[in-house]
Amino acid sequence: MVTVLFEPEGRRVTVEPGTTILEAARGAGVGVRSECGGEGSCGTCRVIVEDQSGLGRVSEDERRHLKPSEVRRGYRLSCRASIRGDAVVFIPPETRVGLRRVQTEGLERPVKLEPLVRKFHLRLPRPSLRDLRPDLERLLDSLWDAASVRPVVDLELLRGLPEALRRADWDVTVAVWDGRRVVSVEEGDTVGALYGFSVDIGTSKIVGYLVDLNSGAVASVESRENPQVAHGEDVLSRVSYAVGARGGLRRLQRLVVEAVNGLVSDSCEEAGVDPRRVYEVTVVGNTAMHHLFLGIPPRHLALAPYVPAVKAPLDIEARSLGLQVNPRGNVHVLPVIAGFVGADAVADILATGLHESDETRLLMDVGTNGEVFVGNRGDIVSCSCAAGPAFEGMHIRHGMKAVTGAIERLRIDPETHEVKYETIGGGRPVGLCGSGVLDAVAEMFRCGILNRQGGFTGDARSPRLRRIDGERETEFVVAWREETGTGQEITVSRQDIQEAQLAKAAMHTGAALLMEEKGLTEADLDRVYVAGAFGGYLNPESARLIGLIPDMPPEKIEFVGNTAVSGAKMALVSREAREEAKRLARRVRYVELMTVPGFSREFASSMFLPHRDLGRYPTVAEYLRSRDARPGDTGPLTPPDAHRKPTDKSGLTITRAGRQIPKTRVREPD
Amino acid sequence: MVTVLFEPEGRRVTVEPGTTILEAARGAGVGVRSECGGEGSCGTCRVIVEDQSGLGRVSEDERRHLKPSEVRRGYRLSCRASIRGDAVVFIPPETRVGLRRVQTEGLERPVKLEPLVRKFHLRLPRPSLRDLRPDLERLLDSLWDAASVRPVVDLELLRGLPEALRRADWDVTVAVWDGRRVVSVEEGDTVGALYGFSVDIGTSKIVGYLVDLNSGAVASVESRENPQVAHGEDVLSRVSYAVGARGGLRRLQRLVVEAVNGLVSDSCEEAGVDPRRVYEVTVVGNTAMHHLFLGIPPRHLALAPYVPAVKAPLDIEARSLGLQVNPRGNVHVLPVIAGFVGADAVADILATGLHESDETRLLMDVGTNGEVFVGNRGDIVSCSCAAGPAFEGMHIRHGMKAVTGAIERLRIDPETHEVKYETIGGGRPVGLCGSGVLDAVAEMFRCGILNRQGGFTGDARSPRLRRIDGERETEFVVAWREETGTGQEITVSRQDIQEAQLAKAAMHTGAALLMEEKGLTEADLDRVYVAGAFGGYLNPESARLIGLIPDMPPEKIEFVGNTAVSGAKMALVSREAREEAKRLARRVRYVELMTVPGFSREFASSMFLPHRDLGRYPTVAEYLRSRDARPGDTGPLTPPDAHRKPTDKSGLTITRAGRQIPKTRVREPD
Repeated sequence: MVTVLFEPEGRRVTVEPGTTILEAARGAGVGVRSECGGEGSCGTCRVIVEDQSGLGRVSEDERRHLKPSEVRRGYRLSCRASIRGDAVVFIPPETRVGLRRVQTEGLERPVKLEPLVRKFHLRLPRPSLRDLRPDLERLLDSLWDAASVRPVVDLELLRGLPEALRRADWDVTVAVWDGRRVVSVEEGDTVGALYGFSVDIGTSKIVGYLVDLNSGAVASVESRENPQVAHGEDVLSRVSYAVGARGGLRRLQRLVVEAVNGLVSDSCEEAGVDPRRVYEVTVVGNTAMHHLFLGIPPRHLALAPYVPAVKAPLDIEARSLGLQVNPRGNVHVLPVIAGFVGADAVADILATGLHESDETRLLMDVGTNGEVFVGNRGDIVSCSCAAGPAFEGMHIRHGMKAVTGAIERLRIDPETHEVKYETIGGGRPVGLCGSGVLDAVAEMFRCGILNRQGGFTGDARSPRLRRIDGERETEFVVAWREETGTGQEITVSRQDIQEAQLAKAAMHTGAALLMEEKGLTEADLDRVYVAGAFGGYLNPESARLIGLIPDMPPEKIEFVGNTAVSGAKMALVSREAREEAKRLARRVRYVELMTVPGFSREFASSMFLPHRDLGRYPTVAEYLRSRDARPGDTGPLTPPDAHRKPTDKSGLTITRAGRQIPKTRVREPD
Repeated sequence: MVTVLFEPEGRRVTVEPGTTILEAARGAGVGVRSECGGEGSCGTCRVIVEDQSGLGRVSEDERRHLKPSEVRRGYRLSCRASIRGDAVVFIPPETRVGLRRVQTEGLERPVKLEPLVRKFHLRLPRPSLRDLRPDLERLLDSLWDAASVRPVVDLELLRGLPEALRRADWDVTVAVWDGRRVVSVEEGDTVGALYGFSVDIGTSKIVGYLVDLNSGAVASVESRENPQVAHGEDVLSRVSYAVGARGGLRRLQRLVVEAVNGLVSDSCEEAGVDPRRVYEVTVVGNTAMHHLFLGIPPRHLALAPYVPAVKAPLDIEARSLGLQVNPRGNVHVLPVIAGFVGADAVADILATGLHESDETRLLMDVGTNGEVFVGNRGDIVSCSCAAGPAFEGMHIRHGMKAVTGAIERLRIDPETHEVKYETIGGGRPVGLCGSGVLDAVAEMFRCGILNRQGGFTGDARSPRLRRIDGERETEFVVAWREETGTGQEITVSRQDIQEAQLAKAAMHTGAALLMEEKGLTEADLDRVYVAGAFGGYLNPESARLIGLIPDMPPEKIEFVGNTAVSGAKMALVSREAREEAKRLARRVRYVELMTVPGFSREFASSMFLPHRDLGRYPTVAEYLRSRDARPGDTGPLTPPDAHRKPTDKSGLTITRAGRQIPKTRVREPD
């Protein structure tokens, strides 16, 4: 057997000599492109191996697809290169499958470290004719002396207890959940190995933290695509599959549980932790994901009046859900607020501390099913916004998910209309992801290519602006044929712009109506939080320019990242935070936007760039005035990095703000 | 299809025309002897059918085995008589398989009717845009209004809740266990159907009561042989099978659960109750039966210092044990006191009220593994007595279980030594069951055939007394060859007498040492309870004569029957009684007889008839003196039926005392 190390992931795998690199990569769970499926005919599976002593000779197929200079630099086709000895294989970005950006970290407030699972090392007295206490009572008496708790023990654990205690020679560590339930009886002193796992089940992405409950520190972070995507991209199609397809609910439940199990197993492997030492899992997700994870039929989430089956937090044994942590570990599912304001929203509030502040704050969780909150310590109102899939790059002609090759950021020169862009992975562009689409709209608007209705002004004379073949529609060319990875041009059409407008209008309408509900204007807001996995990649200047977020001084706007998973982590490590979450779900008022009289009018106004009422966007209005007065000024609205970036307050606090690229990027098969 | 009714059981079964009566009986679970296995060659399967219009003609085989007069009276061979139409079949005692006497009823004190399961009929408001409460919260809010409880709902029930509520059109009945857990959500008003089940798992017999929890009344009573008997007659061989045989524990657990399921299903059928309407089961049994029922390895019950795995009461969901009542029903297993003083003993104390009285009482649960208790409201001590199997008719040459054909009672004429006996089922005798053996020993002693050591006096000149062929041993002939069902004589030997002495000595030693522990003599006892399935069939006069029970005025001795199952029933219908049981298990002190210094001496003294110290048995001593003074007086020690027979105090109280034959006899395949 020989060992192959895949870089930059650092994954190691042991294989039989003669295995191809492609096979080894699959075995290691490393995604390598291979369009022909390993036939040696497409040349997409190129990898770099600097020291080729562990590989077989370069084959004819490889010479056909690789330039001699590439062969000299160590390029190989992974489907043709066979492994003979230990090797280090580097996978260049162009060969990666789905290098997906997932925002895995978010703002988090420091909390008191008080996990619900605790461990106690006990040395029990042996039974004797003078001490005839039964095994269970002997254990519980010692536990009482050590910890003043008297938890219950389930029948299966009790069945194993007589042998477990004697095998351990009466020297054991007991893990107790919430002082109420014995989760594990382990041989010797295992107090040091006490872990938990927090997971945010998004409609698209699942993010998990493995947390050391002795220190509160994150031991590793993993994320995955939500595999339910195969049965519907959005929440409603997922619900309709669960309700309509035979065995659909069961299949979706199993898929998400398997994905979470994968995250647990990957993070445990990375951190060198035995998954049986994970004693509690906290779970958040929108209400539909919450129901699907629990296997609760979500039918009535899709039927008026859209009531969930349950709102309260739930505690469930891991094995009864099929989660592969300690079988008796507790799965705490955070409460939901309403049919479309889920446990992820509760976690958002928890992480941002909206409910604890005297300041009045606006929290926008930007996404396909967005949520908005306005309030403070006294009262919080919430609503849900059906923004649609534009933020995910969907329903956009050249849109794509935020994976390798997606243009995620772009800038247009107001004079030449030249486009500068950045792609994920750094290679040739193949499409626009959500943030790229929003940037394109914002930049076209900034440069006067679009008017406030989102239509092409027609003023701009640019080779990039042209009619779509055979249609009356105009489109803007972001990348020319020669530049792209597909050989096709990447363009943005009026239709695409409208999708972006619908999405941003939905979010803004929610914010505007909630402010109205509370009798507030932007001036009354002390701070705006922009949350959500997507939020972290958003260009804040673009977001303000198109009117997705309110026009506020940059220092009052905070991009808080994936607060859902940080909220779940807070509830994992802190009993107090968990109690807060429970209270929050009861306290936060839910406003059904459809029933608010001004809904349609506000939505129509929010379709404008940035808004029909320019008074709501004074900075943008001022910029437009100055731009029109001094054409050629290409400066941004605000200096870069002016957005508030909170500093770490403690080991428990992780903040990623503004334009910062998150530390953790996770590669995912697409 | 035609219907056959089997009498006297009153079991009904529907069969295809052409089925034989034997097949139909098997289908109905009615035991019919059939030594040749249905070949028509043994003639043992005789039944009586008065109206033969539903049967085929009398066959040649039948004419060969039945006298013409019998054929005229309706006798048929059940393996040969085919059923053509509806028929009523009477099974005469001689054809019965194992008409086993099981004491199914016992003393019970009246308790406050307060079952832990309660039902609430609720009409829920429908969800609307103005009332968006989730399904669970809607249900729990209504429940709170109705009952001020807020129980938890398990995940599986929650999964079914959305459809269940809508199917019921929001009109449901909720069954709640202990205010803590929702057991069932049912359509419409089912408050009237609220049942529980109590079961005593004896080493030999299992007895169950189906109880209407709305009234506290017993709806039906059933009992069965403990099918574990196939893997060992006594506790220790059962434990050694569980520990030693591959899959042994699992098999024993399954067997007892199946037997309890059979009892539940039979009683429910008899009472016309849906088993899903049985929401709680209370279980008692000795500690080994307790462990085996729960699937807890009983290894350490058989190894010093004999500690059980658990002592505390347990509450377990029915489905996790495989019990076929409501799947979420609660199984409450009463606490045990020690390795050989089980939950049945706790139930005995509960039923007799030992712990509540100012009087000092002695409670003896007579059986293979006997238990003795002495005490009052202030303090109770307990011990276990390994009496051995003589009480079950085992280890006795012509001993047998208490099934059809067993001599259960006998009387010897002191002058002629003629023997009068009664058999179970009333037919010819085939052996002696436990009470028959004790009666034989007592009567031989009373008539001067035995001396106080249990040896044959040799004084008595009787044709019934003779040497065993080729041995130096003497034996007493209870029934001659011509009288018996086997064609063999039924005798009692010195060896048999010694087995009986060992058994009674074990019980008495326990009682004597516990009294000593508390510094009491018989004179200090206000009352003696004799409990246990066996106790009900004991001849109290014989029991006193041989020194099994103390020599007390008859009005102070109470035969209380199967108090284990009545105690289990009290704990089923009364929260207070259940709490008492829990306290009892902690409070009752356990004395390990083997560690008591005077054990061997007391045991040796107790081997005497009635005891080495005649001062302990003044009435017996007086009788012996007067007998020897006036030979020929055949009167009993005490007038019949002088033993205390408590009267019913309420609908909840069932008492069967002294010589009374219990109402319920249950036929069992042997």
